[in-house]
Amino acid sequence: MWRWEGGGPLREDRDDLVVEEPLEIRVRGRSLTVTMRTPGHDEELAAGFLLSEGIIDRAADILAVETCAAAEEGNRLDVRLSPDVAVDLERLSRHVLVSSSCGLCGRVSIDMVHRDHPPIESDLRFDPEVLRQLPERMRAAQTTFARTGGLHAAALFEVDGRVVVVREDVGRHNAVDKVVGLGVLHDRLPFDRQVLMVSGRASFEIVQKALAARIPVVAAVSAPSSLAVELARESGQTLIGFLRGDRMNVYTGQERIRGPQPS
Amino acid sequence: MWRWEGGGPLREDRDDLVVEEPLEIRVRGRSLTVTMRTPGHDEELAAGFLLSEGIIDRAADILAVETCAAAEEGNRLDVRLSPDVAVDLERLSRHVLVSSSCGLCGRVSIDMVHRDHPPIESDLRFDPEVLRQLPERMRAAQTTFARTGGLHAAALFEVDGRVVVVREDVGRHNAVDKVVGLGVLHDRLPFDRQVLMVSGRASFEIVQKALAARIPVVAAVSAPSSLAVELARESGQTLIGFLRGDRMNVYTGQERIRGPQPS
Repeated sequence: MWRWEGGGPLREDRDDLVVEEPLEIRVRGRSLTVTMRTPGHDEELAAGFLLSEGIIDRAADILAVETCAAAEEGNRLDVRLSPDVAVDLERLSRHVLVSSSCGLCGRVSIDMVHRDHPPIESDLRFDPEVLRQLPERMRAAQTTFARTGGLHAAALFEVDGRVVVVREDVGRHNAVDKVVGLGVLHDRLPFDRQVLMVSGRASFEIVQKALAARIPVVAAVSAPSSLAVELARESGQTLIGFLRGDRMNVYTGQERIRGPQPS
Repeated sequence: MWRWEGGGPLREDRDDLVVEEPLEIRVRGRSLTVTMRTPGHDEELAAGFLLSEGIIDRAADILAVETCAAAEEGNRLDVRLSPDVAVDLERLSRHVLVSSSCGLCGRVSIDMVHRDHPPIESDLRFDPEVLRQLPERMRAAQTTFARTGGLHAAALFEVDGRVVVVREDVGRHNAVDKVVGLGVLHDRLPFDRQVLMVSGRASFEIVQKALAARIPVVAAVSAPSSLAVELARESGQTLIGFLRGDRMNVYTGQERIRGPQPS
């Protein structure tokens, strides 16, 4: 990645990323959910999910948690339940995946996205002096955050920094859907000359939604995940993190940032 | 709600909450997803979701977005698609709800949770001087955050402030599932004498997961949503927000906080 600090050139550097990978949880041959998670303690994650959904009540309800041998990288768990446990899918408050994808992993997730939304080619350039102003402009346009402190925001900006739209929501992905949906409903897509900015972190899902709207640059106030960086790189998108104060980290597509390029 | 500041008594006060309510998105008589969102710009949310999922490509694919007349509070949208649009549910990367619930609203969401997880009765008391130390203890136990800045955390504490377990994840709900799942797998549930602490915000889903594990007190570094507060109140749980520095806001169950009670 490349660091930019107030006025200077991009400097190449290294950064640790938090790992994001899909995990599929199955019971009795059925897929119950796929969640994007940080690998580790996956058996606990599955057990907690099943308890929360009311499928199990106690430790004895789980006979074993098996990693599906066919799945790459341990991203699929099969929870063997006691025969006493009745699984009534009608009662699930959550969502059941409709997918027959095999070998679930980050690679597959990226390929699935590219099936619908191919990579972006664009030689648009962005001025870092404009980008640095976006967080403040987004905050100024947020109406609810100041009162509640409880909202995420997504904002779309023109290359010159003018605000196109700002949306707030308890869910960051919802705020992005609202921004992109405005483009759909008013027939203003593609947003191929704009920048998407989000409060908080940049996950796989955020980059996916930007790609669907053909947005070449995604900037986040906080850190991106590993899979967000991978998806952005393979999608020809510029991904910026820690855009705050006088600095930013450019994780992919740094050639779109104007100014002296790193050697 | 009640405010607590370093050493003082609880003082009753008012606070604006960000609204969280379920939204169901339907096409051709099928429910595609239910997402917890902040009401407003719902048509955009639906359009952005459909684009991101690859179901539609352009404005003309949507003929109309109709609010389902039977649904309360506008929480169900029916997107009428052009006949040209082929909807292949097998291709959805996301999750499809299996539920026949009608009149979807916050009320129904709470009732659905209580069907599996009844309210908590407990006269346990907590010392605010212990609670105020939890954020720092959680942070100290986080191993990855310091390196990446990109992780949420959930931590379980004993009444006296001792750490039981801390888990980190890109998803806050996953971190909570891991904490609760540890209780399941080691047969240590119910966690009815413990406090759950989460980084960031407290949503409906976080309170639901705590209830499943019978945790009487949930504390968040940032703001709770409206529906999180409603669920906690009706579940007999204490919900604390903005637990940081020398202060906290107690939104429900303030009788569990030791010390001079508000008159």
